[in-house]
Amino acid sequence: MCLAYDGTGYAGWQVQTKQPWVKTVQGTVEEALRRITKEPDLTVTGAGRTDAGVHARGQVIHFDTASRIPIDRFPLALNSVLPADIRCWQAEEVPGDFHAQYSAKAKYYSYTIDQGPVPDVFWRHYAYHFTHPLDLEAMAEAGARLLGTHDFRSFCASGSAVKNFVRTILEFNIRKSGSLLHITLAGDGFLYNMVRIIVGTLLEIGQGKRPPAAMEQIILARDRNAAGPTVPAKGLCLEKVIY
Amino acid sequence: MCLAYDGTGYAGWQVQTKQPWVKTVQGTVEEALRRITKEPDLTVTGAGRTDAGVHARGQVIHFDTASRIPIDRFPLALNSVLPADIRCWQAEEVPGDFHAQYSAKAKYYSYTIDQGPVPDVFWRHYAYHFTHPLDLEAMAEAGARLLGTHDFRSFCASGSAVKNFVRTILEFNIRKSGSLLHITLAGDGFLYNMVRIIVGTLLEIGQGKRPPAAMEQIILARDRNAAGPTVPAKGLCLEKVIY
Repeated sequence: MCLAYDGTGYAGWQVQTKQPWVKTVQGTVEEALRRITKEPDLTVTGAGRTDAGVHARGQVIHFDTASRIPIDRFPLALNSVLPADIRCWQAEEVPGDFHAQYSAKAKYYSYTIDQGPVPDVFWRHYAYHFTHPLDLEAMAEAGARLLGTHDFRSFCASGSAVKNFVRTILEFNIRKSGSLLHITLAGDGFLYNMVRIIVGTLLEIGQGKRPPAAMEQIILARDRNAAGPTVPAKGLCLEKVIY
Repeated sequence: MCLAYDGTGYAGWQVQTKQPWVKTVQGTVEEALRRITKEPDLTVTGAGRTDAGVHARGQVIHFDTASRIPIDRFPLALNSVLPADIRCWQAEEVPGDFHAQYSAKAKYYSYTIDQGPVPDVFWRHYAYHFTHPLDLEAMAEAGARLLGTHDFRSFCASGSAVKNFVRTILEFNIRKSGSLLHITLAGDGFLYNMVRIIVGTLLEIGQGKRPPAAMEQIILARDRNAAGPTVPAKGLCLEKVIY
């Protein structure tokens, strides 16, 4: 099932078992699915665990159900009980071994920066307002150095439980549209806060604080302190997942 | 002063003197200006009195003040006390006879329709979700018939206190962008609900319920019942005002 959501009002994707009263996207979707399937134990697995304030246009989930709702009717049925900031836009039956996270071949994330002198009110929840002038060519050059398979430990929030930091970046793109800057990254997987730390590093390079070639040294350092700051969650959006 | 606002959380532009507790854009802006100028009686006049749920990218206001805040500092000072869904993006001193509404030569409004099978979550407050297939050429042809000076009584909500229904439509434009349809109208002024009734009529023509040429008869009828329904406020945005 493919979902789009505005993450503004949610404490992230994942149900917080220690604080079950916290509103999460996963919890809201599970509650809605339990209601339409009348299966009180139904749980879902998402392709990516988006943080509080992070959005999605193409989150993918899988779940088991014995419901007799026809599969093409599922989006409509689910949307009728979901709040307006979460929409299901596709549903299909998959083989039993399909896994929303582990079967994913690639994920696309976008990060939006609002460079206007005054924040655009219509992007206030979806873009990071950052007015310092940026050298886009330097950022594009630095971004290209991310492509390929690397140990991305420098771009992983400390405290992450993951052991393997090797990921492959498949695409990097930067596009200006009026006052907005859209950065798109595709990869076979992303470490915790990886996109937001990459963008924070690109902003330092765009400001001329470091040269584009610094990106290579930062990767090689395998040290979170070598990279730039983590930019705010609200600019981030899980665009699509490829299987 | 030029303002942008997300009208979702407001009961429209205009202060409701009979219900002063209702949150309005004008009231919020006046409160913020009174705070920074320390002028408790300051009031503002807007170019257009947008309804509840209607947005603005380019609302223009005028007001008198003896404040010594430098004019180029005004936007920053005001934004520091305004809520995030209202932003001031320009301020300039004008001659004493300038009037935000009466000095306006033209106003531009946009109306956005979301034609996607499922509402786009990021446009849920800014577009009218309408999935019936539309003949855009027929709509463009009908829209062109609005151009020029006409008595637009057919497109004025009943109960309006206005006496002169003659207005001049200067521009009409319809543009598709993905699942979104953007209709833009420029005129020397608009009657109450005029844009929303015009769009409601265009949607009937786009569905083939009436031919494009019907637009002329509807104008000539000078009867609100001759036109189509009033579409929802949330798709409407006051884009700019020309002086």
